[in-house]
Amino acid sequence: MRVKELSSRSGVSVPTIKYYLREGLLPSGELTSPNQASYDEAHVRRLRLIRALVDIGGLTIAAVRDVLAAADAPDETVSRILYTAQESISSQPDLPHDQAWEEAERNVAEMVERRGWLVKPESRAWRTVVAVLVSARQLEHGVWTRNLEAYAEASERIAAADLDYIAGITDMDAMLEGVVVGTALGDTLVTALRRLAHQSESRRRLGGIDQADAR
Amino acid sequence: MRVKELSSRSGVSVPTIKYYLREGLLPSGELTSPNQASYDEAHVRRLRLIRALVDIGGLTIAAVRDVLAAADAPDETVSRILYTAQESISSQPDLPHDQAWEEAERNVAEMVERRGWLVKPESRAWRTVVAVLVSARQLEHGVWTRNLEAYAEASERIAAADLDYIAGITDMDAMLEGVVVGTALGDTLVTALRRLAHQSESRRRLGGIDQADAR
Repeated sequence: MRVKELSSRSGVSVPTIKYYLREGLLPSGELTSPNQASYDEAHVRRLRLIRALVDIGGLTIAAVRDVLAAADAPDETVSRILYTAQESISSQPDLPHDQAWEEAERNVAEMVERRGWLVKPESRAWRTVVAVLVSARQLEHGVWTRNLEAYAEASERIAAADLDYIAGITDMDAMLEGVVVGTALGDTLVTALRRLAHQSESRRRLGGIDQADAR
Repeated sequence: MRVKELSSRSGVSVPTIKYYLREGLLPSGELTSPNQASYDEAHVRRLRLIRALVDIGGLTIAAVRDVLAAADAPDETVSRILYTAQESISSQPDLPHDQAWEEAERNVAEMVERRGWLVKPESRAWRTVVAVLVSARQLEHGVWTRNLEAYAEASERIAAADLDYIAGITDMDAMLEGVVVGTALGDTLVTALRRLAHQSESRRRLGGIDQADAR
């Protein structure tokens, strides 16, 4: 297909497609004449993935390039590609590595050890968990000193369900798109469901509203 | 105590304390002379709560006033006060109520019915769950059409653990502070743990890194 059709199929404007071509995010089409290139379904999928990374994941063009480089590297394992995509849409916490940090880091390492998680202390997600524990303790709220395990167990169930879904996708670009959509939109979903569950549980325990009123 | 000590005890500057007094967020102290007021521990706790609402919850002064009004109303139930605090630190999704919305809303209502949750469709959290389903379907990702139940079940476990913690707090200002800290910081914790669990689960299933390498 020509660039115009690629644009209408993908919903991405022709100037933006040309920008992605210049930046090396999108592979060149096959030249059919000196001024004309032909594109295929792989280009449509790649454009969808780029838009998901930019619009939903909030990635910069440089970060998109890193993720795509991982996806296209012939010797990368699937789990490492997924890791690169997920880390790139995660923020990097910035707290001093003082005594409070080291203590929280030890608590996280113990939880990881108990549950047998295959994760690395360098990951942004690990560092974010540590940062939350440090902040909560500074505010004198010990909720996650007691409840970290319940949160971790719940997260395992969610991750298993998500991986069942991802495993059903065979195309790598579509799989990466699933990871980005699932991670970014999933953040919103999991926090909203937690609020709803809180509302239900506090009504059940503390009363003040009956079932008919709540519905 | 005088306003200077209140400032050093709470870490809030004297001009800011005076601003909160003028805005009605902080009750006046007891006048000990025409120009001097005396404050007590209730003022310290209230200032901590205000700072948590503003700094951690990201609330505007008007929203803080709503939460405090709920906390101070004599005939409000505890669950309704917690609901007001939580809703005020949640964003309001803005999507058209078209056919896709109605279908997603029906799916959420069915899940709520199955699980016996005491929650209302007007809550921001409910509307956010619907909005995520609509967005995911527009992107042709059906992950939560299949996995909503697993997410909901995991959220229940987390909510039960959180409510156990909140139930141990007796002072209403401290309880509200716990809800704000728990909701806002908890969003970050639950999303980071979900990422870590994904990383572990994808390594376990898809390989590419052995246990020693991951640690």
